[in-house]
Amino acid sequence: MKRNVLYGQSGGVTSVINASAYGVIAAAKESEKIGKIFAAKNGIEGVLGEELFDMTQETADEIEKIAYTPGAIFGSCRLIIKSEDQFERIFKTFDAHDIGYFFYNGGNDSMDTVHKIAQKAVKIGYPLKAVGIPKTVDNDLNMTDHCPGYGSAAKYTACAILEASRDLQSMYTSSTKVFLFESMGRDSGWLAASAALATLNGEQIPLLILCPEKPFSELKFLTAIEEKLNAFGYCSIVVSEGIKDEKGEFISAVPIKDSFGNVRLGKVSAHIESLIKKQFKFNVHVCHPDYLQRSSRHFSSFIDWNEAIRAGAMGVFSALTKDASDCMVCIIRDIDKPYTSHYELADLKNIAAQTRFMPTDFLTDEGFYVTEKFFDYATPLIFGEAPNLFLKGIPYYAKLKKQLVEKRVSSN
Amino acid sequence: MKRNVLYGQSGGVTSVINASAYGVIAAAKESEKIGKIFAAKNGIEGVLGEELFDMTQETADEIEKIAYTPGAIFGSCRLIIKSEDQFERIFKTFDAHDIGYFFYNGGNDSMDTVHKIAQKAVKIGYPLKAVGIPKTVDNDLNMTDHCPGYGSAAKYTACAILEASRDLQSMYTSSTKVFLFESMGRDSGWLAASAALATLNGEQIPLLILCPEKPFSELKFLTAIEEKLNAFGYCSIVVSEGIKDEKGEFISAVPIKDSFGNVRLGKVSAHIESLIKKQFKFNVHVCHPDYLQRSSRHFSSFIDWNEAIRAGAMGVFSALTKDASDCMVCIIRDIDKPYTSHYELADLKNIAAQTRFMPTDFLTDEGFYVTEKFFDYATPLIFGEAPNLFLKGIPYYAKLKKQLVEKRVSSN
Repeated sequence: MKRNVLYGQSGGVTSVINASAYGVIAAAKESEKIGKIFAAKNGIEGVLGEELFDMTQETADEIEKIAYTPGAIFGSCRLIIKSEDQFERIFKTFDAHDIGYFFYNGGNDSMDTVHKIAQKAVKIGYPLKAVGIPKTVDNDLNMTDHCPGYGSAAKYTACAILEASRDLQSMYTSSTKVFLFESMGRDSGWLAASAALATLNGEQIPLLILCPEKPFSELKFLTAIEEKLNAFGYCSIVVSEGIKDEKGEFISAVPIKDSFGNVRLGKVSAHIESLIKKQFKFNVHVCHPDYLQRSSRHFSSFIDWNEAIRAGAMGVFSALTKDASDCMVCIIRDIDKPYTSHYELADLKNIAAQTRFMPTDFLTDEGFYVTEKFFDYATPLIFGEAPNLFLKGIPYYAKLKKQLVEKRVSSN
Repeated sequence: MKRNVLYGQSGGVTSVINASAYGVIAAAKESEKIGKIFAAKNGIEGVLGEELFDMTQETADEIEKIAYTPGAIFGSCRLIIKSEDQFERIFKTFDAHDIGYFFYNGGNDSMDTVHKIAQKAVKIGYPLKAVGIPKTVDNDLNMTDHCPGYGSAAKYTACAILEASRDLQSMYTSSTKVFLFESMGRDSGWLAASAALATLNGEQIPLLILCPEKPFSELKFLTAIEEKLNAFGYCSIVVSEGIKDEKGEFISAVPIKDSFGNVRLGKVSAHIESLIKKQFKFNVHVCHPDYLQRSSRHFSSFIDWNEAIRAGAMGVFSALTKDASDCMVCIIRDIDKPYTSHYELADLKNIAAQTRFMPTDFLTDEGFYVTEKFFDYATPLIFGEAPNLFLKGIPYYAKLKKQLVEKRVSSN
């Protein structure tokens, strides 16, 4: 008997989260076991509110274009399910629309949501396959070699540092000597570290990288800048938003909490800028790419894009053929060079609400740069340029009808 | 009798200034009237210091790659020639290396340098063709329809707003509602205005643009945000670094002077951010792309790139065949759609140290958006994607030997 699919997006976006959406939808369309395909508006919020987009109303061409579109095309959210009332509403929606397969696309907090829903389904005897599809530019999910979204954000970061360093080099003798780039990465330095990939083409770039994994020492940092200035005359610096001092406190001017309850940062670069200005008495150019670091679909990694599509498709395949539930699709690396990988499933209890830090040996001892091991790890992930659709000089995206299904739950 | 060419780069870089360098060098190599080709290290600074790179030492393949490289490959500077002593040193260098052709690639301050050198040459009877090659992301040079460098920075800006707005749209119901992007453009709003090109693919983007051409009114601005929030729930804002209040004062927290003596800005977004937070009591995401806006060669406009190459080549052609000097190569538009253009020369006295503002009818009356006339003007300039060379997932660039010629001036 055919049952229906529900797909949802959660947490901060990546430039390829919609590639996974496409992977899920396209794979589900091919299966005879699946009836209708729904996408929740704003992730679990749309499940709670019974706001489901009907994918059978979309043309095949527009579904194809979903993979070329940045942002979260169905809307995302940051919501942690806590109350019994919420669970009840979720399963009412599932039941009303005969949802047999639930695919949720997100990071560690979102995997916690899938985990809880899968467990609840077992407890109440609702037949459901709930599978997590990994997604985060932070690359901090357990059990998977890496996360879809990371490779593209890393490629963006490396290219930004490469291009900005050429800019800096052009005029450092008479103008700016330090370029400071603030990277996303609240808990881990994966994304900041990727700046080092700017040297893969053989460029010599005086570059310092500050990751949360290494306690920030003002003195060592200023000394390291001085060394680069002495050797090159200029220096690029990448600082992760989540760096901490030796006491474990965030180096951040204005810490605020996001709706997940996490401490949210953003202005650490202002602090680092002041430090440098005070010490060296010169102006610093500060770049804060903000959303661009995770949304630059126009310059996504082909490997990352393709793996994101495959992760979505493998979620569907696993649920259909392996009876998978309460698990996440993981990418397992076979070989570094030439890079090959395959997919396996891992229990969500080992992933949900947990953070994977960079291995100690990915960072140099003094902590301002990465080791060869990091290069071996990250180099394959930025390979190739994902295709784009262009119109009049800018990208163009899927235009979905986004038709909401009629509500069936009386209380909604 | 053959004479030598000297090419120099000046002012802030663009992603295609090296395309013009390639245009000059490649065209000069083809001419029988030209002997050697030199490039000055850091523009006029290298002329003063007799630091000239010998282009005949470079391979044809590497010269080709110059067009694919961001930054100023020979180094740039911000130096205004003022003293007689400086002129003397410049002409000593010219004379020692038999420079018959001087091509200087820059903006309005740099065109002032070419103008003064050309006039001085006439005055002292030194046979010289001095021709300016336009370059500026600010697009504020007189006499030319537009400036090489602008189209690519405009394309970057439009794509950034397009991608970031999709990000914003993904989660505005439960997260950030305003995205604020600080654009370069000290005196004119050409670059900030280009953000509107994000709508060329048919997207509906709630977007406000603040240009220096319109005095900034706090009240009108906050009202405009409120209207967008009411209609869409979220809003993207682009603010030019050079906006001024109704008294003509820069809206900027920390005004400093650059080495040209211009007031240099950069933190206007911090002021706008505070305004919005104060009024609406919510968090604002601030993007400060800084150098990336002018250095993102990986996403340059094909039209811009090609016109930059042609501008360089036309400089050489004009000097050789039209006896041109004390003038700048200008791009003259023939038709908007399909876009065609040709090149003419204009006297530097009408360009040097002058600023071209946006026509009044390019901005809407209330001043927060552009008109159809702006779209007609700017749309062709971002068309097409300039090719890149990629290696291991990142761009790769020319690797020049940069061999300095032996100094001949005894005082240097």
